[in-house]
Amino acid sequence: MAEEFSVIGKRLPRVDAIEKVKGEAKFTSDIQLPGMLHAKFLRSPHAHARIVSIDTTRVEALPGVKAVLTPKTVPKVHPLGEVPGIDKLEYLLDETVHYAGEEVAAVAAVTKEIAEEALKLIEVEYEVLPAVFDKEEAIKPGAPLVHPELGGNLCQCPRSVDGMLPLEWGNVEKGFAEADYIIEGTYESPLQHPVSPEPRSVVCQWIGDKLTCWASTQVPQKIRLDLAHCLDIPLSSVRVISTYSVGGYGAKDSEKTATLTALLARKTGRPVRAVFTRAEDLIATHRRIDSKIHGRLGVKKHGTITAIHLKMITNFGRDSKYLFMIPCAGAVGTCSALYRYNNSRWEGYHVYTNIEDHGAMNGFGDPEAGFCVERLIDEAAEKIGMDPVGFRLKNCMRYGDKAMDFFPVMFGPKIEWGVAGPDIDSLPECIRKVAAKAQWKKKWKGWRTPVEVRGTRRRGIGIAIGMHHCIAETETPDAATVKMNHDGSVDVLSSVPEIGQGLKTAMAQIAAEVLGLRYEDVNVILADTSVTPWGPGVFASRGIGAGANSVYLAAKDAKRQLFEMAAQRLGVKPDELEAKEQKIYVKKHPGKAIPIAELCFAGSQVTGNGMIPRNWIDERSGKVIAPVSVAATIAEVEVDTETGELEVLKITSAHDCGRVINPMLIENQIDLSITMGNGWVRSEDFIIDKSTGVMLNSNLLDYKVMTILDMPKGEDIQEIPVEIPAPWGPFGAKGMAETAVTTQAPAIANAIYNAIGVRIRGDHLTPERIFEALGK
Amino acid sequence: MAEEFSVIGKRLPRVDAIEKVKGEAKFTSDIQLPGMLHAKFLRSPHAHARIVSIDTTRVEALPGVKAVLTPKTVPKVHPLGEVPGIDKLEYLLDETVHYAGEEVAAVAAVTKEIAEEALKLIEVEYEVLPAVFDKEEAIKPGAPLVHPELGGNLCQCPRSVDGMLPLEWGNVEKGFAEADYIIEGTYESPLQHPVSPEPRSVVCQWIGDKLTCWASTQVPQKIRLDLAHCLDIPLSSVRVISTYSVGGYGAKDSEKTATLTALLARKTGRPVRAVFTRAEDLIATHRRIDSKIHGRLGVKKHGTITAIHLKMITNFGRDSKYLFMIPCAGAVGTCSALYRYNNSRWEGYHVYTNIEDHGAMNGFGDPEAGFCVERLIDEAAEKIGMDPVGFRLKNCMRYGDKAMDFFPVMFGPKIEWGVAGPDIDSLPECIRKVAAKAQWKKKWKGWRTPVEVRGTRRRGIGIAIGMHHCIAETETPDAATVKMNHDGSVDVLSSVPEIGQGLKTAMAQIAAEVLGLRYEDVNVILADTSVTPWGPGVFASRGIGAGANSVYLAAKDAKRQLFEMAAQRLGVKPDELEAKEQKIYVKKHPGKAIPIAELCFAGSQVTGNGMIPRNWIDERSGKVIAPVSVAATIAEVEVDTETGELEVLKITSAHDCGRVINPMLIENQIDLSITMGNGWVRSEDFIIDKSTGVMLNSNLLDYKVMTILDMPKGEDIQEIPVEIPAPWGPFGAKGMAETAVTTQAPAIANAIYNAIGVRIRGDHLTPERIFEALGK
Repeated sequence: MAEEFSVIGKRLPRVDAIEKVKGEAKFTSDIQLPGMLHAKFLRSPHAHARIVSIDTTRVEALPGVKAVLTPKTVPKVHPLGEVPGIDKLEYLLDETVHYAGEEVAAVAAVTKEIAEEALKLIEVEYEVLPAVFDKEEAIKPGAPLVHPELGGNLCQCPRSVDGMLPLEWGNVEKGFAEADYIIEGTYESPLQHPVSPEPRSVVCQWIGDKLTCWASTQVPQKIRLDLAHCLDIPLSSVRVISTYSVGGYGAKDSEKTATLTALLARKTGRPVRAVFTRAEDLIATHRRIDSKIHGRLGVKKHGTITAIHLKMITNFGRDSKYLFMIPCAGAVGTCSALYRYNNSRWEGYHVYTNIEDHGAMNGFGDPEAGFCVERLIDEAAEKIGMDPVGFRLKNCMRYGDKAMDFFPVMFGPKIEWGVAGPDIDSLPECIRKVAAKAQWKKKWKGWRTPVEVRGTRRRGIGIAIGMHHCIAETETPDAATVKMNHDGSVDVLSSVPEIGQGLKTAMAQIAAEVLGLRYEDVNVILADTSVTPWGPGVFASRGIGAGANSVYLAAKDAKRQLFEMAAQRLGVKPDELEAKEQKIYVKKHPGKAIPIAELCFAGSQVTGNGMIPRNWIDERSGKVIAPVSVAATIAEVEVDTETGELEVLKITSAHDCGRVINPMLIENQIDLSITMGNGWVRSEDFIIDKSTGVMLNSNLLDYKVMTILDMPKGEDIQEIPVEIPAPWGPFGAKGMAETAVTTQAPAIANAIYNAIGVRIRGDHLTPERIFEALGK
Repeated sequence: MAEEFSVIGKRLPRVDAIEKVKGEAKFTSDIQLPGMLHAKFLRSPHAHARIVSIDTTRVEALPGVKAVLTPKTVPKVHPLGEVPGIDKLEYLLDETVHYAGEEVAAVAAVTKEIAEEALKLIEVEYEVLPAVFDKEEAIKPGAPLVHPELGGNLCQCPRSVDGMLPLEWGNVEKGFAEADYIIEGTYESPLQHPVSPEPRSVVCQWIGDKLTCWASTQVPQKIRLDLAHCLDIPLSSVRVISTYSVGGYGAKDSEKTATLTALLARKTGRPVRAVFTRAEDLIATHRRIDSKIHGRLGVKKHGTITAIHLKMITNFGRDSKYLFMIPCAGAVGTCSALYRYNNSRWEGYHVYTNIEDHGAMNGFGDPEAGFCVERLIDEAAEKIGMDPVGFRLKNCMRYGDKAMDFFPVMFGPKIEWGVAGPDIDSLPECIRKVAAKAQWKKKWKGWRTPVEVRGTRRRGIGIAIGMHHCIAETETPDAATVKMNHDGSVDVLSSVPEIGQGLKTAMAQIAAEVLGLRYEDVNVILADTSVTPWGPGVFASRGIGAGANSVYLAAKDAKRQLFEMAAQRLGVKPDELEAKEQKIYVKKHPGKAIPIAELCFAGSQVTGNGMIPRNWIDERSGKVIAPVSVAATIAEVEVDTETGELEVLKITSAHDCGRVINPMLIENQIDLSITMGNGWVRSEDFIIDKSTGVMLNSNLLDYKVMTILDMPKGEDIQEIPVEIPAPWGPFGAKGMAETAVTTQAPAIANAIYNAIGVRIRGDHLTPERIFEALGK
């Protein structure tokens, strides 16, 4: 690419690096307000129970306790769901608890310690009800009902038929009839906790009849909507601020904690802070679904895929913040926008159980579906004796292919098709680049032939690809404002929060690049709902494609105004100008220029506004583009056939970035997602007491998140950015890295197979499971 | 007026009433930050001295002291002046001090007490220099030079000739030649301190390389400019917040305190707070000029004024934040935009002395000039035997008259003329209404004929009129944003601060009225420079005409967008619609309507932007309108001829408001200004030691501000709003009440004359001066 950039593409330090390193950056739990109280929540020890009575007499008498909330004293409202128009089942505080850990009461006291002490003085009488925790148990006849009022444990979605949600395109039966081989199997994926380094935290303060809420969240505007809804006050009376959060990973997307804290603050007339303990965060924030998929794949001898059919059962827990969206998104991704299947059918069964809610988590359905599909694909390639890299290259999507977009499937009245944009050609490019870098040709010795054998230790190599709908459009689009100051510096306003992904840095780079300014001239102000323009938040890798994209459009709008002013002053047309080095230059007369500061002072009030469109249209076909980001990962592993011990030696991961705004941010994101993808199937496990539903490992010693020490070192993790500019992204950039989670488990599973010749279709790739699979 | 309003014009409680009454509203001195230090300033005991040495060894050793600044350790920069391009003489900390009270050093310590203690340990050696305090002494040959580098004490402005600034129009000599009588005299006006209930206060915090500064100020954007300038950082690195301040009265318009506090915070790496004591606020914030004017007025027998000539000398003190603007503004107001003088000449001599700086204060030159002119006018009316009400009615300006605008005179290359807009006809209306309400006809018995005589007590009645340029345009115009939320509620963003004038309330009423919403649906966010659109601040009564006007325009822009969306949905044209009761209605089919919330949700991102124009044009003449607000005050007084005791019995004040947005706000403003206008000449006095220049009454027991107990009670103060909509104001509203200050002193002086037949041309109307004037 011949384009020259002065700010983007550079390894610039994060704009917030110094303040974060010095401990000056303010996170929610850093907020200190005079007279602030501390909130704690009493949680149910039972997975399913009716609260017969709550006696708060003793706690109210405890000095230092300022307020107690119980189901009887809070409004009987459902917090807002993620899908407009569909009510959630959850109440602020419910008279029936549906999982062990659900909030029963809330207390505000002058210290955290008194608040904790107070919880012990609340006397609750429960009538314990029968409970069910396993998704398959839950749909057996006679199983305890999680929500008796629904008459069954199968989640009924508006589009579902008898509790089953079908999505079908092409003619699956015809497809299978045309196949030479049909591969079939049952594949599982495990539950996973996001484990944000910063537990759920919120601070609420009322001033007059106006509420300010500091929250660690990905979606400040949604928290605002939820607070206004639950408290029955205008949105303009609620200000949610989330200037910095740490690691949402999907879990910080909505929460009733804010409302309960706001109610405590209102009742006491004092600011109230609620910060979850690690145990609370594990027990009572939502998590990735666990799933079981029966998959069938039809394939022709020469390598064409003719049909796919997935039948999925997922564990929704007490409630879903998204209803059918998560498994559905995975299905859409893996069944319609990664390979050319032509004929595809997905059946989803979503089951309520008495465990905590599921919700969004990195990958949003793709890892679950992908862990199935990429193992199936591998088996199919083997069946026809084709190299797995070649098989994927042959069948993967290309520009102009029919592709399903996320939004019409999720919200539209019927399934509508768009096209894969020109940037989808990064998919074969990712496969080629990752194969080259990982020395696939040299290392791959054929099916069931290890890369190397040393005694009981066998080395194997495996590949997986994946995609993610990086939502770059939305029903209620992101907007941003770029305010030019009198000295030519700028303030950028956007409602999306910085959650560690580096969006604040990327936005500063983008605005500086567009306007020809220095990186340090840009100040980015994020996620302060009353003052920053609407934007739904950061999720689905939409930070760059939607949030930063609106900043890009706003900066271009400001530049247009500057060019108009400069053109008049310089006696040329706006299109003869360019912005660089804090000046507007006449392109053909580099001596002719005017400082941007001069224009800002004279003209004043140069404010650029940008809003992303609801759809991005493909230039060639005129059809809607399905904005996706893809990746290919190759894992090299060593398995000890005596013990089942698994070592992941190398991970090479090529990622479609559209355009690299800052290489360090890309690498950070990929590394994190690789670690999360490994932890998901290799070390993490959600263990509940099978009789009570109580989580048994609600701490980070026993819930084993992978750390840098558990991962391949330095050079052994290779991140490869692939830059084919997306026609819809800012400078072509797109959201990425969720696919790094998606591709880990199947690449490792496929590498294990290459090493030891045994397929693992279960949910974990632990030494125990490998040992088991080896028939030992 | 037949127009019907649902929100404006109503006696609605202030939007911030509850939070202020409950003590929840955050003012600058309420800001508490973890680790916050306290700043104190060492002040010079000498009015003019060179600092020979400063020894900070002892103070640095005092436990709890974290930083000390001296002239040697701060940047050698001039804070920005108010007039672009003209440097101020002041330095952050200067090696020569020019008045008693000037900052010599600054200290930050862990407590206020330690910081105060620390000041005593700073050892300063001064070389005392000769000083001069009186404006007339200062221009005598051989007087000590305040700024020896200037070669004289006369302020040289860009337009001045030999230290004298002339403004002339018509032919004054010809005018005087045509006069039947010439009235001539020397009139004085006193210095006045603004005495804000909230002393100067500022809190600075650095996070990374970004500064946040909370300041009690009228001009947050100017503080931001000043901080960026003095600290040499981009504007985008500075955020100034002034959500609430109390009573600027002109004095909170710029200050180096913010910069010194920011430097202390940067040096210590901790937040720093500086809050002035009352004494510091009196000694070291700027104040109203004192003046002496020799005036001549030519008048014809039948009552036509033929010429005016004012020769003014004013005491600038050490420096001016405005150079010649303040006296000049008064001259422009009183000599060109109140009466039809036809021929006018003003000569201004502005003198540096070794007392504190002067600066803006309520009325901005008008009270000083007006106290002279309205006494001259009264003498002229008496000379030709005309009733003073009739004389003013005959000569006062009318719509279409040539009128001088503020800005061209202040900033333009030459004097340019505009016209008085149709709203100037409120001037005769004010005179008529105040005369009717005060029962002038009944009470006025003729010149030197008291209203009533009871023993030694004589009752008199007097009138004065006045005008104020309520700046409704500006070089860098105010902008505002109206963000519609999904439920149809709105956030209003503007950079002008709420300083107690009620602007936040007025803006909420205006936005609600325009958009057909409820008052409580509007949230107003003010004066947070990084997020609110540019606006220079509140001064010159511009809050409503410029700040709230941009909100009005932004709300109209949002309404236009809503109408476009609604028109499409309802199948009509936008101009067939109206907004009321939170809905958009088809005017002719009241059953046909769509809720605003519905439009906001579906369309999303309805954001209205408004910016006031640089000039307002008169429809009839096509000429620029000089936006002014006028008033007429009648005072009824009782004087004891034995003792000189003065009682002000009744004040009736009619004020041109254009349109009343909220009657309570109007009344509050008028009442405050009446009190300030009375205090100016009746009780306040700036007393300095004539040999040292040290203020001797720097406390509120000895500097006697008038309180509610000193003023006429209840019914005896009558505020009369006069509503002739200004073509440039929001709903016709305009800034007002500064004229209440202007009209007090001359109305009382003229009433005293009516009571006792003695003219007081001096600066105070105290019993001593009356006693003196009575020749006793």
